[in-house]
Amino acid sequence: MGNADYVYPSNVECSHRVAIPPPQPFVKSLKYSLKETFFPDDPLRQFKNQPPSRKVILGLQYFLPFLEWAPRYTLEFLKADLIAGITIASLAIPQGISYAKLANLPPILGLYSSFVPPLVYALMGSSRDLAVGTVAVASLLTGAMLGEEVNTLENPKLYLHLAFTATFFSGVFQACLGFLRLGFIVDFLSHATIVGFMAGAATVVCLQQLKGILGLDHFTHGTDLVSVMRSVFSQTHQWRWESGVLGCCFLFFLISTRYFSQRRPKFFWISAMAPLTSVILGSLLVYLTHAEKHGVQVIGELKKGLNPPSFGDLVFVSPYLTVAIKTGIITGVIALAEGIAVGRSFAMFKNYHIDGNKEMIAFGMMNIVGSCTSCYLTTGPFSRSAVNYNAGCKTALSNIVMAMTVMLTLLFLTPLFHYTPLVVLSAIIISAMLGLIDYAAAIHLWKVDKFDFVVCMSAYIGVVFGSVQMGLVIAIAISLLRVLLFIARPRTVVLGNIPNSMIYRNVEQYPYTNNVPGILILQIDAPIYFANSSYLRERIARWIDEEEDRLKSTGETSLQYVILDMGAIGNIDTSGISMMEEVKKIADRRGLKLVLANPGSEVMKKLNKSKFIDNIGQEWIYLTVGEAVGACNYMLETYKPNPMKNEAETRNTV
Amino acid sequence: MGNADYVYPSNVECSHRVAIPPPQPFVKSLKYSLKETFFPDDPLRQFKNQPPSRKVILGLQYFLPFLEWAPRYTLEFLKADLIAGITIASLAIPQGISYAKLANLPPILGLYSSFVPPLVYALMGSSRDLAVGTVAVASLLTGAMLGEEVNTLENPKLYLHLAFTATFFSGVFQACLGFLRLGFIVDFLSHATIVGFMAGAATVVCLQQLKGILGLDHFTHGTDLVSVMRSVFSQTHQWRWESGVLGCCFLFFLISTRYFSQRRPKFFWISAMAPLTSVILGSLLVYLTHAEKHGVQVIGELKKGLNPPSFGDLVFVSPYLTVAIKTGIITGVIALAEGIAVGRSFAMFKNYHIDGNKEMIAFGMMNIVGSCTSCYLTTGPFSRSAVNYNAGCKTALSNIVMAMTVMLTLLFLTPLFHYTPLVVLSAIIISAMLGLIDYAAAIHLWKVDKFDFVVCMSAYIGVVFGSVQMGLVIAIAISLLRVLLFIARPRTVVLGNIPNSMIYRNVEQYPYTNNVPGILILQIDAPIYFANSSYLRERIARWIDEEEDRLKSTGETSLQYVILDMGAIGNIDTSGISMMEEVKKIADRRGLKLVLANPGSEVMKKLNKSKFIDNIGQEWIYLTVGEAVGACNYMLETYKPNPMKNEAETRNTV
Repeated sequence: MGNADYVYPSNVECSHRVAIPPPQPFVKSLKYSLKETFFPDDPLRQFKNQPPSRKVILGLQYFLPFLEWAPRYTLEFLKADLIAGITIASLAIPQGISYAKLANLPPILGLYSSFVPPLVYALMGSSRDLAVGTVAVASLLTGAMLGEEVNTLENPKLYLHLAFTATFFSGVFQACLGFLRLGFIVDFLSHATIVGFMAGAATVVCLQQLKGILGLDHFTHGTDLVSVMRSVFSQTHQWRWESGVLGCCFLFFLISTRYFSQRRPKFFWISAMAPLTSVILGSLLVYLTHAEKHGVQVIGELKKGLNPPSFGDLVFVSPYLTVAIKTGIITGVIALAEGIAVGRSFAMFKNYHIDGNKEMIAFGMMNIVGSCTSCYLTTGPFSRSAVNYNAGCKTALSNIVMAMTVMLTLLFLTPLFHYTPLVVLSAIIISAMLGLIDYAAAIHLWKVDKFDFVVCMSAYIGVVFGSVQMGLVIAIAISLLRVLLFIARPRTVVLGNIPNSMIYRNVEQYPYTNNVPGILILQIDAPIYFANSSYLRERIARWIDEEEDRLKSTGETSLQYVILDMGAIGNIDTSGISMMEEVKKIADRRGLKLVLANPGSEVMKKLNKSKFIDNIGQEWIYLTVGEAVGACNYMLETYKPNPMKNEAETRNTV
Repeated sequence: MGNADYVYPSNVECSHRVAIPPPQPFVKSLKYSLKETFFPDDPLRQFKNQPPSRKVILGLQYFLPFLEWAPRYTLEFLKADLIAGITIASLAIPQGISYAKLANLPPILGLYSSFVPPLVYALMGSSRDLAVGTVAVASLLTGAMLGEEVNTLENPKLYLHLAFTATFFSGVFQACLGFLRLGFIVDFLSHATIVGFMAGAATVVCLQQLKGILGLDHFTHGTDLVSVMRSVFSQTHQWRWESGVLGCCFLFFLISTRYFSQRRPKFFWISAMAPLTSVILGSLLVYLTHAEKHGVQVIGELKKGLNPPSFGDLVFVSPYLTVAIKTGIITGVIALAEGIAVGRSFAMFKNYHIDGNKEMIAFGMMNIVGSCTSCYLTTGPFSRSAVNYNAGCKTALSNIVMAMTVMLTLLFLTPLFHYTPLVVLSAIIISAMLGLIDYAAAIHLWKVDKFDFVVCMSAYIGVVFGSVQMGLVIAIAISLLRVLLFIARPRTVVLGNIPNSMIYRNVEQYPYTNNVPGILILQIDAPIYFANSSYLRERIARWIDEEEDRLKSTGETSLQYVILDMGAIGNIDTSGISMMEEVKKIADRRGLKLVLANPGSEVMKKLNKSKFIDNIGQEWIYLTVGEAVGACNYMLETYKPNPMKNEAETRNTV
């Protein structure tokens, strides 16, 4: 680092040349661009300047992060992880069964999915707080997308196999994204999209629970509000009050424990235990009152034993392959978005770093292994991870503890769920879903950024009135439209001089700035691309028109110079360069001089290559707006003494 | 305009407050945004402050621009327009017939299409140089898209009616774009896309002419290189040498006249007259030698008489409606892109203004009227307009002269085309198409902007090896990807101090800049949106890591401040604000102070609404990087006297 000499020139304007960056070989700049696009976090940095043996260890730790924490594991950690693991298992068992029902899959799959995938994640995942399990939204989406092609009642086996296949493709897709460093695709699901989408999905999932709560036998296959309402109100005579009362009681119990725990975070375990308590209470109640014979539907028999292998069940040659791939990719992306966001937010709390691409590989492997062991799509659900975090987990070992608890349940306790009423599962789902509807976030969006609010609401409305996929597509389309609109309609602002300085800023933001007589200073806020070059040409022409009209009406010095502040123009393409040439022609035609200020390196490079710099003249490109104005004023004074200009306006110009 | 007092502070840093723009009512800012998006050129400006009668006249002139020039029309103009009109008619007649054949439509439609649409355009169009007519690319596309659904040989009537219907929808779509001020959609066809697409389409059109040149009876319906080559070489025994020789002779004649005219622009009329001369020579030759009986195909009978009405032929209830609408929209957009670009470039030469949206309405009306009078899609072809311009046309009256000439031909001269050999038409098409392959532009793209070159080449390859639509879709997708990639991976650069100034610039572009000890200055070159917020967080963290590593290895002052130059950040969304909060946390965790410099009005507004300004502290937001550095240096010196820092480095800091 050189010496930074702060010698400020007093009342002297030294004009600085704008540098044209040295030409770079094409391959080098391509390599740089590719690195920034795919390896922005420079994952190989820690491998630099290390002996080979250390490199091997670092490499192993990179793919199996448990090697990092295992050697430093202590008894105290174990205690904490044991408590956390058992707590999340008590949540995982009822939720697993409930969400499997939501996906129209056998309930036992929910337990299977809480056994194998957490083990895989514990080895490969880099989050210490993430608790692995199935999620409601992905379950619902799996059910809806596969259900369009295969009727689960008519052909349950094919449906099951397709679910495994979809999970397999989810895993492959997730792992590929990670390996190919394409994790940034998940970023295109903006926060606003996720808020709206989650709230919509939660609403839709709650609506589906009306089936369980009201004890209905037949129900629509649609997920939208209109179909569900029509289905519910067309069979009012089939509503079962026993089921309804039971459901409402448990829902009240669950919501009140959740409310209590939210108020007193120390008692987080009360809301964490509530679902299992509900299941036990509900099962006991049914067992004692034989309510299953009076219209209260129960789970029925669950097979004892661990996950059977399901590799042979994957379907690769069927006409249904397309739907399995489509379902896999869409649910995979959504699961990924939730899992990565959850991992990142807890890492932020505890001050450690998570590598998104590495997490994707872990999620992918977990689902690939899961699909071969009778599991369906798993990720890191927010609610369960929050319980894990509150219960004081230290490492991913809590996932192993949870898996072991679920294993014991699978081996010995499945008969106990025979009498569990479905309505309790519905109540558990609803109470979990209510937490996903984030009013506060939507209000915040409205306050801060109206466009984000529109994105959020369109995702919500799309999901509730259309379908889950439709909501997602609409929200992403609107988000992208916003980005395109930013480029297509960049802001151009007029700059004015901040009194007693050489600083020029937006006259609207700083109303106390002074205009400079005879000079129009414009700033463009976006790269100049094909999508905005026509607009900018028209807009700059209009600024000049308006300024000339204004000057004419007030009788001030006529316009002589147009300075374009290029500081915020990150890049330019060939359409943009043509636009600049046309603006130059427009200016020439009106007898104005076009002056550029502060073009960046990319822009200078391209202006130079296209000979625009020779066209405009290197001497008309300045490093700052201040210097450009200084030069223009000098020229105005020297060559065109204007009687209308008073002394004061120009006295400090060299 | 106030007095601009250039009193430069000598060695005094006056810290300026960054203004938070005054809150605007939502409706007002929405109105402003909508105006900038849809009315950037402020078309109503000329109506302001005018008496009502004048407003009516201006309004009429707005929709019927001929009212503007008609009153000022002179005899001299008429002379010029007469010459130009007759010249373009001599080009329009053979080209019209050729392009109609390309669209698999009856040749007479080419003449019909050069009669009615030019009359409509002469009334409504605002370009003085545009010559209306059919174009090869849109003709080929019409043929290819309709041909997929309806076989023109088996069901010529339905095919013809679908062509009219597609033209009708093109017109409606074009007029709608104009009325709804959505003209900017055409801007998404970038210059690079158009260069590649046009070259590809020209190649494909030339390939199609092999049928005529070789005198083949059967030919593939595909347009891609592979199908055409397979079709041509699978029937080598059917090649007709008579046809081939004739074709090559005329092609040589046409190309050499074109080359001559290009060298000597005064003799533009030689190349303009060449096609008609070829037609006359070819017809005479066939008539005299009876070559039509020796394998030279001729046009055959053309019906005498003006355009029959075709309003009743439009198909609105058929199962083919979708294909008609799709064809109409795609060909309509392409025709629009060519027409608008042609109009604009000649307007630029002659220094007058063209309103894109108004032109779209004119094109739309011209095609709607055309579709009801047996015409198919017309626009403003480049070649014909260039001839019009070179022939010295003064107003759109040259189009009327052309239409009248074509009318006379339709009424009296159609029998003369009976013996015109098809091979001459093929030669005319090929020679016109060769002009569309713009090698020089492609080389320019490669030199200036590699990404634009990729867009151009992918359009070309897509068109030649896939289909015309595929090339278009690929090119637009890549162009949009570029825009998204600019947002998803913005450049962050480190700034350094330019010696003896308060200016801070990119250290890569200005290698002679000095680093400031203890301070890292970063500039972000794009708006902070959901698509890049994760990336920027990681990237900023990496810059800090790298800077700290570097400082540690060289033993310099440790890092204390991170200054973010927000000058080039045009906008921020809620994901971006979360990112800023996380960056603040990252900085806090490492004991660094985050300082912002020069946030714009949009950014300040949102940072304020989201309380981020309170979080970071208003006093840590500066108007310029220079002032931020000054303040940081002051704090460094006052509160943390660092023994490692030498006097020189900080002596000028207040």
